[in-house]
Amino acid sequence: MNLDALYSKLLVKTNAKLALIVLDGLGDIATGGPDSSTPLEASYTPNLDALTQNSAQGRMIPVAPGITPGSGPGHLGLFGYDPLEFQVGRGVIEALGLGIDLKPGDVCARANFCSMDAKGIVTDRRAGRIATEVCEELCDILSKKIKKIGDTQVIIRAGKEHRFVVIFRGKGLEGPLTDSDPNREGLPIAAVKPTDAKSAKQKKAAKLVADFYAAALPLIAKKKPANGFLMRGIAHQPAIPTFEQRYGLRAAAIAVYPMYKGLAQLVGMEKIEGPQTIAEQFERYVAEYDNYDYFFIHYKYTDKAGEDGNFEAKKKAIEDFDAALPILLGKKPDVIAITGDHSTPVAMKGHSWHPQPVLLNSACSGSDKLERFTETGANMGSLGIFEAKYLIRLMQANAKMFDKFGA
Amino acid sequence: MNLDALYSKLLVKTNAKLALIVLDGLGDIATGGPDSSTPLEASYTPNLDALTQNSAQGRMIPVAPGITPGSGPGHLGLFGYDPLEFQVGRGVIEALGLGIDLKPGDVCARANFCSMDAKGIVTDRRAGRIATEVCEELCDILSKKIKKIGDTQVIIRAGKEHRFVVIFRGKGLEGPLTDSDPNREGLPIAAVKPTDAKSAKQKKAAKLVADFYAAALPLIAKKKPANGFLMRGIAHQPAIPTFEQRYGLRAAAIAVYPMYKGLAQLVGMEKIEGPQTIAEQFERYVAEYDNYDYFFIHYKYTDKAGEDGNFEAKKKAIEDFDAALPILLGKKPDVIAITGDHSTPVAMKGHSWHPQPVLLNSACSGSDKLERFTETGANMGSLGIFEAKYLIRLMQANAKMFDKFGA
Repeated sequence: MNLDALYSKLLVKTNAKLALIVLDGLGDIATGGPDSSTPLEASYTPNLDALTQNSAQGRMIPVAPGITPGSGPGHLGLFGYDPLEFQVGRGVIEALGLGIDLKPGDVCARANFCSMDAKGIVTDRRAGRIATEVCEELCDILSKKIKKIGDTQVIIRAGKEHRFVVIFRGKGLEGPLTDSDPNREGLPIAAVKPTDAKSAKQKKAAKLVADFYAAALPLIAKKKPANGFLMRGIAHQPAIPTFEQRYGLRAAAIAVYPMYKGLAQLVGMEKIEGPQTIAEQFERYVAEYDNYDYFFIHYKYTDKAGEDGNFEAKKKAIEDFDAALPILLGKKPDVIAITGDHSTPVAMKGHSWHPQPVLLNSACSGSDKLERFTETGANMGSLGIFEAKYLIRLMQANAKMFDKFGA
Repeated sequence: MNLDALYSKLLVKTNAKLALIVLDGLGDIATGGPDSSTPLEASYTPNLDALTQNSAQGRMIPVAPGITPGSGPGHLGLFGYDPLEFQVGRGVIEALGLGIDLKPGDVCARANFCSMDAKGIVTDRRAGRIATEVCEELCDILSKKIKKIGDTQVIIRAGKEHRFVVIFRGKGLEGPLTDSDPNREGLPIAAVKPTDAKSAKQKKAAKLVADFYAAALPLIAKKKPANGFLMRGIAHQPAIPTFEQRYGLRAAAIAVYPMYKGLAQLVGMEKIEGPQTIAEQFERYVAEYDNYDYFFIHYKYTDKAGEDGNFEAKKKAIEDFDAALPILLGKKPDVIAITGDHSTPVAMKGHSWHPQPVLLNSACSGSDKLERFTETGANMGSLGIFEAKYLIRLMQANAKMFDKFGA
């Protein structure tokens, strides 16, 4: 029997409240021998420590051993969707990051302006990294002139510097398509092709991209330095069973950054707008307590500090989170999971494959008798090391959402 | 998406050097309660201890829970090949153990001389364990008379005592075939049959074996006590994607015993001849540093001592390894993995299923803050317990050989 089918079969309705708190990129490594610390170990976290007394701990493999996930696969795993089965194209992630409300079937492309010579040869793939304002102006020109191609709606949205996204919203479209980016200077813009020659939907999408190029390039031909553009990661938003379909949970996303709101929307969570700080996010959780069963609360600053290689900033981000935690605990969810979507070690200044620590608290989580929530502590926890996609199942079990299997 | 395909897709070229050091049968069990030690725990290993300060640890399941592997599956797992998917017949392993250079498609059989009565009934399945010299003499007789059967080359090589191997090298052959060994005395030699009745290649191989028997038995009919022979584990050498194809790594095997060189050759590693001691092996690693990306260094004596049930010898073998370790560390690989291919507990005098401890060291392995590398310490490591086939993936990740998965 398929495991997902078993979970669905055993599902029972409860009134439990579940909260997943993602400290983005939380996991880290100690790089100075036995006396060195990770930011989590070094931080002062009295509230987390108190919660730990009655919690279970473990570590999670975001995708598979050695695989470093982007935010997309990282979060899909936490939401219980196998990141290998549910892949989301880069164009989709980029569009979500710009706060665009996507619909299933939308074909999205990451795009960026480039410079071309008179013969159409790409001379600078990033157009000298034009200012964001210039990019916005160019996107404005394109948006005003190109609203539709045939029966397909075209949405163009500027990003930072030379980057923008293009969304094709219509019927019978599908990705992924090959890139138009030649990947190095000295070559012309490449024609975009279906990755599956037999797919009529991909063929239609490729034709649309070609038509879009034909319409768009003349509009910016006289501009300098950005007189062309390249498209990558062209894919459609996959149809993903929603959180409610899959788990019977009404879910809310309390995130600050658009990408995380977008990822939550991908699986059918409602995004809650407004809160800007973790304290405000927890306050909003309290206010919305009765309206949802599951709360995804996303905190970005641990990852940001990790990416910057800033140990003190990561420590401070964790301490700021800890200081706000009592707001959540004031109206305590029945099940709390605190973890990262992956590790972002300060020493690596980027995402990594290292299993992230996870803390699970409920009336029946048991106590692992660990004094604190840390990477090395989590190594000794009762949850062991497991794939992140199972976290939601453990949360559901702790919420008593599963009947016994067999007699 | 298939996981192996994902690993391949994310692969990037680096100049990193990776070293896998296999202390054969390293893992052990403490059998005298909490105050007892394993050989690894009891040994004096200052160099390993120092390396441990900045290393991660874990334990590896060689194949699957409770499965005791032979050297073949044990090493294939360490090399990243699922031992259930890539099965190598005993005949092939035996041939590799005798140092025979095999080609893909070669059908190999473990054989041993036996005694038969006038009616062809097997009276002693091992022919009284004849001396190795007698075996060599008999193999010589067979080799001189039987060089080919049809268009198939026949290679016969003596092993220890009554054992030898037969290799059929030709076109269109395949195993596995059933054994000719009746498994007990009092029965005649069994006819060898295809295991898959529909396989024309197996049928051809079975016919060859029958022809070989018809040609060979008359040649030794007058010999005593060995006037017959039995064949087992008849299988072809499978075509296995090479290390370079699979991982993009130029790999070298620095092993002393033929079987481990052979197993490394199966996956396309180059065997480096010469070194006889672990110190010489490490010296050779230093000399070959620029010529390869990946080094498999095999050390046999931990397993030997385990098989002998000799605690002190196993401890000594570990200490000898530790004493030589500084030679390797003098030209430190970017990624070091130290482990066994399985456990060979002294108390069991044989291979076992117990997960072997593994130590992983790189600039981004992190420190698990463990003072020593031991079985009980490894239980608390950040790598957790994982299947041995993933070790190479963690080594590749530590060598930064993988791009990020998704955005």
